[in-house]
Amino acid sequence: MKIFDKAIETRMDRKCTFVALGGGVIGDMCGFAAASFLRGVNFIQIPTTVMAQVDSSVGGKTGVNHPLGKNLIGAFYQPQCVLVDTDTLNTLPDRELASGIAEIIKYGLIRDAPFFEWQEKNMEALLARDAGAFAYAIKRSCENKAEVVSLDELEGGVRATLNLGHTFGHAIETRLGYGEWLHGEAVAAGMAMAADMCVRMGWIDKSLQSRILSLLERAKLPTAPPRHLTTEMFRSTMSLDKKVADGKLKMILLKGSLGNCLFTSDFDPKALDATLAAFCDK
Amino acid sequence: MKIFDKAIETRMDRKCTFVALGGGVIGDMCGFAAASFLRGVNFIQIPTTVMAQVDSSVGGKTGVNHPLGKNLIGAFYQPQCVLVDTDTLNTLPDRELASGIAEIIKYGLIRDAPFFEWQEKNMEALLARDAGAFAYAIKRSCENKAEVVSLDELEGGVRATLNLGHTFGHAIETRLGYGEWLHGEAVAAGMAMAADMCVRMGWIDKSLQSRILSLLERAKLPTAPPRHLTTEMFRSTMSLDKKVADGKLKMILLKGSLGNCLFTSDFDPKALDATLAAFCDK
Repeated sequence: MKIFDKAIETRMDRKCTFVALGGGVIGDMCGFAAASFLRGVNFIQIPTTVMAQVDSSVGGKTGVNHPLGKNLIGAFYQPQCVLVDTDTLNTLPDRELASGIAEIIKYGLIRDAPFFEWQEKNMEALLARDAGAFAYAIKRSCENKAEVVSLDELEGGVRATLNLGHTFGHAIETRLGYGEWLHGEAVAAGMAMAADMCVRMGWIDKSLQSRILSLLERAKLPTAPPRHLTTEMFRSTMSLDKKVADGKLKMILLKGSLGNCLFTSDFDPKALDATLAAFCDK
Repeated sequence: MKIFDKAIETRMDRKCTFVALGGGVIGDMCGFAAASFLRGVNFIQIPTTVMAQVDSSVGGKTGVNHPLGKNLIGAFYQPQCVLVDTDTLNTLPDRELASGIAEIIKYGLIRDAPFFEWQEKNMEALLARDAGAFAYAIKRSCENKAEVVSLDELEGGVRATLNLGHTFGHAIETRLGYGEWLHGEAVAAGMAMAADMCVRMGWIDKSLQSRILSLLERAKLPTAPPRHLTTEMFRSTMSLDKKVADGKLKMILLKGSLGNCLFTSDFDPKALDATLAAFCDK
């Protein structure tokens, strides 16, 4: 509403351009405002965090949170351009940096085994903010995301795989209160939980789970949710997930060798029970 | 926000359908909520007023008001279907009926001279809520609107002609407070003001102006704004209009024989001055 107020007070017209300079929240909020102001005006993304550079600025998803859930209100709306400058990362706090790396790790897991292997070799360079390493990681991430989105802009199928770890992750963020954990931290814990579930169903080997946990740990990311979150908290928040259809939760799960995943409701509910029991005190 | 709250509380998912049963405000609001909930869900319009049946339910414009202006926040979003039942008009108040007829008159003026002539013969049947006459008028109106919208869904050009009388009309509605005058009443007064301006510039004959005023009067519609609105009120509100581009107001104006109009900023500003002076006490 502040964006709308300002735009109207300063008499912006349909030919104006909204510029989102900042992290993912700024981009999502500004993008939704651009989509809705006068039923749609031009919009440019200048993401200044790793998270926004590798994920939220690409693909046209915009939105704002509702007190009961994340990003429940929004629009699919593409920016006219996305401008990424790795210099903006020099002043990014360490936790924010790691949070963005969680999404980079995700691309390797869901569809790009060679990229995951590159990260296993270059994680320290990323943490040291090596500009060359980051330029490569951002480019490769955006290419992966753009390929997935171009196959499925409105999220009917394969696009959902970009949400690996996010179903658990959103529950963590919602229950802790937004901002307590960063998005990528919650996603990292969520990916560890998803890997645990997949091992229980025999969908992936323990050795792959170990590589995932090891890479997350090297990136200084959490591999489990805070233990005081209860299984009931996860269940009730996950039932509000956008990926629930016909009352059934669909999840993104790993299956087979590194780089393969599924978006499915056809998983063993007992494996989900066991994973929640393993990660929650009660 | 009430729609979002309810949708989330009742755990609606992406496969849900929003149904807008009511007049234009319900349709616009419900449509924008459908466009934004989970970034877009299905949506059906069941308009129950003449205004909504002949205008707002067709074309995919959705939106809500901002305290500083009408429909400034919204989306272009098409319903899966629009269901019109003329039986719903039997209980519509007379003023609401007339308000919708203003838009029917508009279609004749901007592009359909034979339809305007049909209205000149059948206005009393419409006011008597003759089902056959209404079915014809609604069908013909929707055909006109659909043709215009299909030529220009995102309102780059010809679609704007559907807003004949609306620039003045929005100013009237905004300054009186929404709801004081019905939308079609404000549009009727706006069309009379536009006709006055066009006569001053020599764009239309006085005889056409007389036919317009006569048809509006027969429909029990106003042909002038409340006299206490000032020229300054019109000017400041019109400068916030969505149709302002590069600081210049574009207006829909009649030119030539019945059924012809222009969307242009290339009009004589002195004619606008004279029209405002003629319709306002100060």
